[in-house]
This record gives sequence, structure tokens and C-alpha cells, in this order.
Amino acid sequence: MKRTLISALVLLLAGWCNADAKCEDGSRLWLRLDTTNAVKAITGVKGTAMTELQTYWKGGPVTLKRQKGIANDGYTIKSQGKKTVIAAATDAGLLYGAYHLLRLQQTGQQTALLDISERPFFDLRILNHWDNPNGTCERGFAGKSIFLNPDPKRMKMYARANASIGINGTVLNNVNAKPEALSDESLKKAKGIADQLRPYGIRVYLSINFASPIRLGGLPTADPLNADVVNWWKKKVNDIYRLIPDFGGFLVKANSEGEPGPQDFGRSHADGANMLAGVLKPHNGVVMWRAFVYNPQSSDRANQAYEEFMPLDGQFADNVIIQVKNGPVDFQPREPYSPLFTAMKKTPMMVEFQITQEYLGAANHLVYLAPMWEEFFSFVKPAGLKAMAGVANIGDDTNWCGHHFAQSNWYAFGRQAWNPALTSEQIADEWLRQTFTGEELVRPMKQVMMDSREACVNYMMPLGLHHIFAGGHHYGPEPWYKPAGVRADWTPPYYHKADSIGLGFDRTVNGSANVKQYPDELCNIYNNINSCPENLLTWFHHVPWDFRMKSGRTFWDELCHKYDDGVKQTRRFLATWDAMKPYVDCKRFKEVQHKLRIQARDAEWWRDACLLYFQTFSKRPIPQDMDHPVHNLDEMMKFRIPITMYENPECGYTK
Amino acid sequence: MKRTLISALVLLLAGWCNADAKCEDGSRLWLRLDTTNAVKAITGVKGTAMTELQTYWKGGPVTLKRQKGIANDGYTIKSQGKKTVIAAATDAGLLYGAYHLLRLQQTGQQTALLDISERPFFDLRILNHWDNPNGTCERGFAGKSIFLNPDPKRMKMYARANASIGINGTVLNNVNAKPEALSDESLKKAKGIADQLRPYGIRVYLSINFASPIRLGGLPTADPLNADVVNWWKKKVNDIYRLIPDFGGFLVKANSEGEPGPQDFGRSHADGANMLAGVLKPHNGVVMWRAFVYNPQSSDRANQAYEEFMPLDGQFADNVIIQVKNGPVDFQPREPYSPLFTAMKKTPMMVEFQITQEYLGAANHLVYLAPMWEEFFSFVKPAGLKAMAGVANIGDDTNWCGHHFAQSNWYAFGRQAWNPALTSEQIADEWLRQTFTGEELVRPMKQVMMDSREACVNYMMPLGLHHIFAGGHHYGPEPWYKPAGVRADWTPPYYHKADSIGLGFDRTVNGSANVKQYPDELCNIYNNINSCPENLLTWFHHVPWDFRMKSGRTFWDELCHKYDDGVKQTRRFLATWDAMKPYVDCKRFKEVQHKLRIQARDAEWWRDACLLYFQTFSKRPIPQDMDHPVHNLDEMMKFRIPITMYENPECGYTK
Repeated sequence: MKRTLISALVLLLAGWCNADAKCEDGSRLWLRLDTTNAVKAITGVKGTAMTELQTYWKGGPVTLKRQKGIANDGYTIKSQGKKTVIAAATDAGLLYGAYHLLRLQQTGQQTALLDISERPFFDLRILNHWDNPNGTCERGFAGKSIFLNPDPKRMKMYARANASIGINGTVLNNVNAKPEALSDESLKKAKGIADQLRPYGIRVYLSINFASPIRLGGLPTADPLNADVVNWWKKKVNDIYRLIPDFGGFLVKANSEGEPGPQDFGRSHADGANMLAGVLKPHNGVVMWRAFVYNPQSSDRANQAYEEFMPLDGQFADNVIIQVKNGPVDFQPREPYSPLFTAMKKTPMMVEFQITQEYLGAANHLVYLAPMWEEFFSFVKPAGLKAMAGVANIGDDTNWCGHHFAQSNWYAFGRQAWNPALTSEQIADEWLRQTFTGEELVRPMKQVMMDSREACVNYMMPLGLHHIFAGGHHYGPEPWYKPAGVRADWTPPYYHKADSIGLGFDRTVNGSANVKQYPDELCNIYNNINSCPENLLTWFHHVPWDFRMKSGRTFWDELCHKYDDGVKQTRRFLATWDAMKPYVDCKRFKEVQHKLRIQARDAEWWRDACLLYFQTFSKRPIPQDMDHPVHNLDEMMKFRIPITMYENPECGYTK
Repeated sequence: MKRTLISALVLLLAGWCNADAKCEDGSRLWLRLDTTNAVKAITGVKGTAMTELQTYWKGGPVTLKRQKGIANDGYTIKSQGKKTVIAAATDAGLLYGAYHLLRLQQTGQQTALLDISERPFFDLRILNHWDNPNGTCERGFAGKSIFLNPDPKRMKMYARANASIGINGTVLNNVNAKPEALSDESLKKAKGIADQLRPYGIRVYLSINFASPIRLGGLPTADPLNADVVNWWKKKVNDIYRLIPDFGGFLVKANSEGEPGPQDFGRSHADGANMLAGVLKPHNGVVMWRAFVYNPQSSDRANQAYEEFMPLDGQFADNVIIQVKNGPVDFQPREPYSPLFTAMKKTPMMVEFQITQEYLGAANHLVYLAPMWEEFFSFVKPAGLKAMAGVANIGDDTNWCGHHFAQSNWYAFGRQAWNPALTSEQIADEWLRQTFTGEELVRPMKQVMMDSREACVNYMMPLGLHHIFAGGHHYGPEPWYKPAGVRADWTPPYYHKADSIGLGFDRTVNGSANVKQYPDELCNIYNNINSCPENLLTWFHHVPWDFRMKSGRTFWDELCHKYDDGVKQTRRFLATWDAMKPYVDCKRFKEVQHKLRIQARDAEWWRDACLLYFQTFSKRPIPQDMDHPVHNLDEMMKFRIPITMYENPECGYTK
């Protein structure tokens, strides 16, 4: 009998789980609606809203009513006796109303005596897919592009998921766009996708390569003021609208990180954007023109977008929206908001968030991003913005996002775009109730979600640190990364500036003067090391190692403790999840546990790498009242994960 | 300037250390005596004692005096005005007195008004080298055998180190002895070593292969009662004594783990041992006959040595010493004492400790073993024993033992063999003061040393668990190890017997009845699960998972906490050592830090592997108030360290 112990054990390992809970693979996302006993008594306007309710609604009769005067794609839901009436001016409004009702059902809320009136805060709530023609996704950690060979079932699920949270636009391809994105073949494919998404109120957009007239059209130039170029674009846009009559418009990354743009022809961003806007205008299309530029002429990358775009304020056409990343550098675990948001007064703007976790542990770390976006909106009032874009974390993995909890970021993006006044905690609550089953899990895992972003900041880059990632794939720490020939602002030492005095980038008026890009009141706060929020301290200051923090600790000791706090937080997340075992189906329990274990190990790797590296400058001991590094700096410095920027690492440090 | 950052960093990494402290390599062990300003005024008996004092003593004049009536190799040290007189009956006694005086100097103690009288508790204080003819050392974690190509400088240091702690014998070769150990060539080599050790009072011994008359002598048998065999041994022993007139005798592993022995010829251990004893007797040689036998006829390996040797009690010649390992199984982190020690009343016995850390983390873990040996002596009174043997942890590594702190185990073995009443704490104190410099290190690192053995028990096998090591090299956890074809008592499940009821080996009167081998009083205590010491609970009982422990916790929860306590203890050791940086030379600081980091990671590996594996039986959750496993059982089960039993692993688990 003992000889079969190993095989028995394998069975045990496979079998030891919550036998009562049917295993789930996450493919249904938060739409785990069940079709049994659905009520068919749905009357009124036919369409997707009616189909969804007929399939999933288990309450009393529902009437779908067309009603003018409800703005945008808003809706009302009102109980009339046993009947529920959903009213909206548009099909999309009715669909959103239907999903609202289903959400109430799924989260176990009251569905009687309803008197609901909703309308979306932003008109445009749009995903940006960074999907390439070969099917890879830049910073995609959940497999290949879902648009490579669009599977109708998956496309329908994608459409339903987006519509259920109010997303109404999607950019199908990478901002680093190939000219072929506008080829006849590509447009035919885009038409196919658009046709599948249209019933769910989702319009399709494309990223374009500014040099397309040359590289696709064979013209000698792509100068936006050249008549042939303009004509080429007009013809191309006409072609697009013939195929996709409700095509949304273009997303453009120009003169940024090597992509072509109007500056290549002596023209400004405004010249380029306005030309395209003019071509799209007759079709009601828009141009989303990205402000993610950093021309390395200025000494501080954080200054550069402002320097390049501020002179153009007021020069953009009214169907151009300047799309600005939330922070001035690049989707870091914590950045101050990009000062363009408060500086550009005469230009329509939208914010670009990154749902995919390029810098926050890829699909291995549980990091709920809604608190980060909420933090952004505490500085930048939503009313000042036209739209909200999110770089998608979606791929062809069975569970769509690689990490089951990464689905919550897709969900939260949609919900915040619908209503930025929703708190991240409310959103976490409703996501958990829909994605899992049972009350027991909600409170503890909501706490984990709410703590997770700050934990990530702690174990990756606390106190204002930024961009100290591994080169290339951006997974794991490489604060020492500085190979010859790589531009300085792609290397961590450019940002942390560690030396024997201290740590951090002096962006005060005596430094790069980045603080001056902020409104006076904030400028004054950020400029003074004693008033600067500690969570942005090394962002704005070169902080002496012995600077006294509010905790009473020196800066060095505080830095050490923040890293160790992050490690301890990830361990707590893991323990909390382990206790959820009785309440979660077997498959998802194990997959999330596996990821949380990676995260706990990665947090320790981050702590050890960063503290041991910075210690070579600080020359101060690691405090006694915390765990000390268990890895060796020389070994960590030799370690590389052999992946590209299109893959999710299997795990982190393996020494 | 930034481009040279990496190279600058390498310099920093190399250079950041205690610049005031000269780097040391550990080669001087605890004899870091300095030769400057040595006092040459040493008078009296010439010899090694005088040379050592002339070279290293910095105090007043010393006289070395021959004095009859001081037993064995004892000595007195008395101050007479400014002069110190060391008196002894033998050269060795004078040498021990000289080292005592030098130890007082080195540890900063009083060297005036001395009135010291010392004598060794055991006459024989002997190292067992498990060195093979090809230079490998079985369970040797510090390189190759120092006897392969004996370097005169190293031999002198080896002799001095041993003499300084009172060791007076050494077995040059592995108990798994080749017949060639007695070849002319081998004996010539042994003579060379004996000649180098003799001035330091150290006699040489050899392990022999019981089948040597056949395999070396060409006889048809090795039957100990055969006259040709006896004659062969007589001739061989005469040859040895011609070369090495003070040769000590033989160490014999017979009928154990495949080695030949008298039972192969229908004779008993007593027949075999007594024959050799008779041959050695005229030369004053001894036979150390090992009781490490476990014939798998009985259902409990822990019973077998007793079963085989007890019937022979009283039958052994007076120059035979039965050498018994401290525990009944095999050098585990914790075992009860071997019941043979209290059961055999009419047989001279000696204890065999293992200084090399076969089962305690090899040369990677800081585990100070003296508390374990002290624990043994709290059960087995030293007065009942004739001698003390220790399996050496010595190799040709620069620092002799692989881990700088492993030197303390060699040191402690000698000191305890000299005086088993010395506490492990006293020994740690004097070792630290000699091996390092400065008072600041003593208190914290003494605490680490004193806690280290219990920490190792905690993270490896708490609460009486034993032998759940990786097969072969015995480094790391493999509680699941049970390949087909391997004898059951070499596999962990034989020992832990985990099942859905509980964990542990039932050795009560209702089980294997091993408890009956102990004196009645202990038998009663061990036999009852409620009185059995918890630190031996699963050694003697199959403990139900929900058994209530003294802490109030269930057994499963307590097991989890013990493992996690072990992890936390290793982290504390690391932090404590990190704080020693200002007080330790650079090289040894880094080398010990490197090892402590491995140990902390290994402790976590042990915790995760054991708890996750046992959890497949217990089906109980890991308590919330501790860190949860961060590794995955299936991955750990696939992992193997590709080393033999002759190597120190570079590190542990690397996933």
C-alpha cells in the first residue's frame, strides 16, 4: 500500500478542495448569471436588452420602454406594482438598464420598489487594446489577442461584459500601430468585429500610424498640410465608414517613442491632429491624440509632455481629444497626476488609465486599481474631462485576464467611467458578489482588494519612488539597470538618483522645476520637503537618508519599513485567501492561491533587491524590527527573466 | 558618469564593509593568537607546551613542571607571585595547561592569582573522520579530506586546534571502511599523520573492514573464530604498531548497512569484537564496536540496536567499547536517547555524536549542537560512559568546516568531552570571544547560538518528527519520499505515518513497544500521550490531528505554529547577524550572512513542504495567525538537488 502513496497523494492533491462548489474557470467573468427559471415576461422594445432579460432575469415582468428626454444613454428603472419598467431614449440605454436590473439580482439586492435614474458621466468610455497584427498584445499578460481569430462566442461574451459595465468604445489595435492597420484586409476584419459589437452599443476605433500615407499609400510624404496626404486620409476614412458606418475614430501616438508624427514634417501636434479631425468630422468621428511624449531635450522626462503640449493649448479642433496618461511619467504604482490636466484650459482632454498591470506585477499580482484611479480623481475633477480610456488587460486566456482578480480592474474601469463618484470599495463589493458566491468571502477579500494597491506601492516603490523596474518586460526590480546605449530616461538611476546623500529626483524649483507645472497651491506644497506628502517624497525631492519622517524614523529606516510592510501585506493576503477555501470553487481557489504565492515571493524579491541596492548608497543598517533580506544582491543582479513585453512571467526570482 | 555606475557599484559592493577590521578567512579557527610581543620567559619542561607559550603568551614568566600524582592528562595552573606554574604528569597535561592559559588570555580573563586544577572527564576524546581513500568525506560539507594529501601546515593547525580543546584521538577513515585502509600504503600514510599529531598528544585510530582477511589477505573466510583469520589480524596489528607505536585501535562498523561482520560467518558481535580486542590487547589498543545496526526484521528500526545488543551484555572483552549513537535512529535534530545507554549495565560504552550536520542543514545552517549534547547528558549520565566520539565536520575548505559557525561544534565537542559539566552557553561564550573580536558580538550571537538548535527542530521536524529528509543527501524536506525498491526504513512515511487520523509513530506498549526499552519511570511517561513530552510526541505516539496541546491549540495548529516559529527564528538570526557588521571583519561577515540567508529560505521551504504535504492528510486549514506557505507542493515535490552525500549544497530550493 505504501508503494502507491505518491499516486494516492496526487489524487489527494487534485481532490482536496471544496467538493460542494462546482469548479469554475473564470470565463464567465462577473456575468455568472444562471439561465434556469428565467422569467420570459419581458415586453416592449425588442433588442439585446430584451434578450438578456429573457435569458437571465428571474424576477417579475419587465417592460422596456423608449422614452425621449433621457440624456445620452441614461435610463430609468421604476417599479409599477409587480412590474418593472426600464425606460431609455436609446437601445444602449435600455441595455444598460437591463444590466443594472440583473446586477441587483446577482448581488442579492432589493428588486422591488425601484426608482432608479442613471446616466453615464463620460460620453466616451473606451478600452484601448494594445494588440498587434501577429496576435501578441503589448503588455498583455493573458495570452494572445482576442481579435486575432475572433471567436463569435468569445466576441459575444466580450460585448456583453463591456456593455454590462457601460463601456461603449474599443480601440482594436496597438497605439504603436502598423500602417497595415488601415489595409483593406484589416478594415474588413474590423468591420466583422464592429458588426458583432454593435448590438451591445460598442463602437469600434482604430490606432493609426501617422506615416500611413507613405508606408501604405505610397505617397512621398505624410505632411498633414500636404493636399495629397489630406486626400489620402479622406479616401481612407470614406472607405472605413462605408464598412463601419458608426466607426468611432482614430487613436494616435505620434512623435513618441520612435513613432512617426507631424513633427517629422515640421508640423505641430495640432497640425497633425486637426488634419485628421477635419477628415473625420463629416462622419462624426473623433481623434484621440496622445500626449505621451517625452523628447529628451529637457532634463526631466516628467516635464516634457507639458513643455510640448502647453504651447498648443487652444489650437486643437473640437473633435480632437488630447489623451493624457494619469501621471506624468508612465503608469507607475504611484505618480502625482499629470500637470497637463490642470494646466490646459482650452483643450478637450481625456485620461488614459492602464488596466493591464504593466508596472504592477502583470497577471501575477493581485492589485486592485480602482483606488489608484479614485486617488487621481481626487486631484483631477472628472467634470474637466471628456472621456476615459483604459488600456485593456484582456487576452485569449480562458479567464480573460490571466489573474481572476484582474477581472476586477476591467470591471472597475467600466464602472468608474460610468460614474466616477462610485467609490472603489462599492465597486469591489459588487464585483465580488457577482464574481464569487457567498457572503463569507466579501468582507475579507474586499479588504484585501482595498489594501492591495498600497501594498504594491510598498513592496515595489514606496515614498515616491518610480520606474525602478527591470528593463524590457518591467516585471521585477532592477534599480541598478543601466546598460550602455540605452537612453537614460529608460533606466532606473535616472529616476531614483541614489547617492551618498540620499534618494530621489529633485523636481523642486531648485531642481527640474517640475513643481511649477502644478497650480500654485500644490506647487508650494510639493516644493517644500516638509509639506510634500510622504507618499510622493522622492518624486519631488532628493531626500537625505537621515531626513526625519512623520513617524519619527529616518527616511532610510522608513524606506526599509515600507518595503517590509509590503511583504507582510502580501503574506496576509495569501493567508486571507487560504481561509476562503470553503467558499470558493476548487479551480479558482488554487489558481488564485498560486498567484498569491508568487506575489508574496515577488514582494520579498523587491524588498531585498531595492533595499540591498540602495543600502550600497545609504551605508546604513537595515532596522532590527523588521525581516532582513534573504536574497543576495550580486545574485539578484545577475538574474534575468527571459521573456518579452508580450508575455506573463511564469514566476519571479528563482534563486 | 552614469555609464560607469554598474562598475562603481561592483566596487561599492566589494568595498562596503568594516574597513577597520582586517578580513579573516577562518583558517585560524578559535586560535587567533597573535605572535607580537610574546613573552619568551618560559622555563621548565621542553616540548610543544613550551613552544606554544613562547610563540603566543604575552603575560608574565611561566614555568612548566613535571609533577606525579596528577591523574590522566590533568594539570594545575598556579600563580606564584608574578610567575605562573603549570604542572602535569604528562607532556599532554602540560600542553592542555598551556592552552588553558592561552585561552584565559584570548578571552580576556584574569591571568593572575590563578589556582586551577583540571582533569579530563573522559580518557578518550576522539574524532571520527568519515573520509574515503578517494578524498571524499561522507556527509562532509567542507570540501575534501584533509588526509588525502596531508599538508604539514594544515596538519599542524589541525593538531593544535584539537589539542587546544583536549581531543586526544582521531579515526582517520570512514566507518564504511575499505579493506585497503589496512594496505601497506595506507598504513605508511597513517604513520606520517600519526607522527605529525603525536607532539600534540593525539593518537591515531583506523576504521577497519571486517572482511579484510578475505579481501586484503586473500583468506577464504573472515570468521573471527578461525585461527588463520586471527593470525592474519595479529600480523596486521603487529605491522601497524611497528609503524605507529602509540596506535590507538580500531573502529568497527559491522553487519550494518551492508558492511560485512561476524554475523556473515555465523558469529556474534561479541565474537567479532572480542577477537580484535584480543589481538590489540598486548599493544594496549582498543576496539570501538558500533551499535548502529538495524536489521529490518523488527517492525521498528528504533528497537533494533537494543534487540541485537542487549543479549550480548556482559560478553565483551574489557578493551572493547560499544559505540552508540546518541539516539536510537540516526542523528536527527531531536531524538530521545538511545535506550541501550541505560539498559546495558555490564558493557563499556561510549557515545557517538555527529559534529558534521548531516541532518541539520549541512554547512549551510547555523546550528550550534552543544545544547543537543547537553540535553543527551541530562538523560545519560556521563559517569556511565567510557569515552566520547564525534563524527568530524572537517574538510579542506579554508575555514575547515564550511560554515564559520560550524567551527563552534568542533570546539564544543572537545570541550564537552573534556568536561561534560560545562554548559553549552559557557562554551559558546568562550568560543565567540576567541573566534571573533569585541564584546559587542558576544551577547547577541550567543543567544543566536543557544536558540539555533531548537529553531532547526522547529523548522525541520518539531514535536518529535524525524527522518523526513530528502533521500540520499539528507538536505531539505521530502516527507513524501518513497521510491519503489528503497527499503521502507529509509523513507519518511515509515517514520511519520501520516494518515487521516493523525501523525506519528506509535511506539507505546500498544504499538512497537519501544517505550519498554527505557527505564520504567521514563517508559510510563513516554507511553502516555498526556505525559509524553511534547517535543517527542510524534516519536512515541500517533497523535490525532485534533489532540489538545498544552498551549490550548490542536496538534495540527501547534505543528503549523512550530514550523512557522522556526522560520521566524531564522529571520531573527539573520537580522541579528546583520547588526554585527560593525564588529566583524568583512569576509567572514559576508560569508556568514550568505549562509544565514540560505538558512532563512530553507526554513521557509521546510515549513511549506511539510505543512502542505501533511495538510493533504489533516485536511485542516493553516491557522490565520501565522505566515502561510508561499511555495507550491507539486513544484516542491518535483524538485531535487543534484548532489551526492559527499557535497555541501550550494543552496536549497530554487523555484
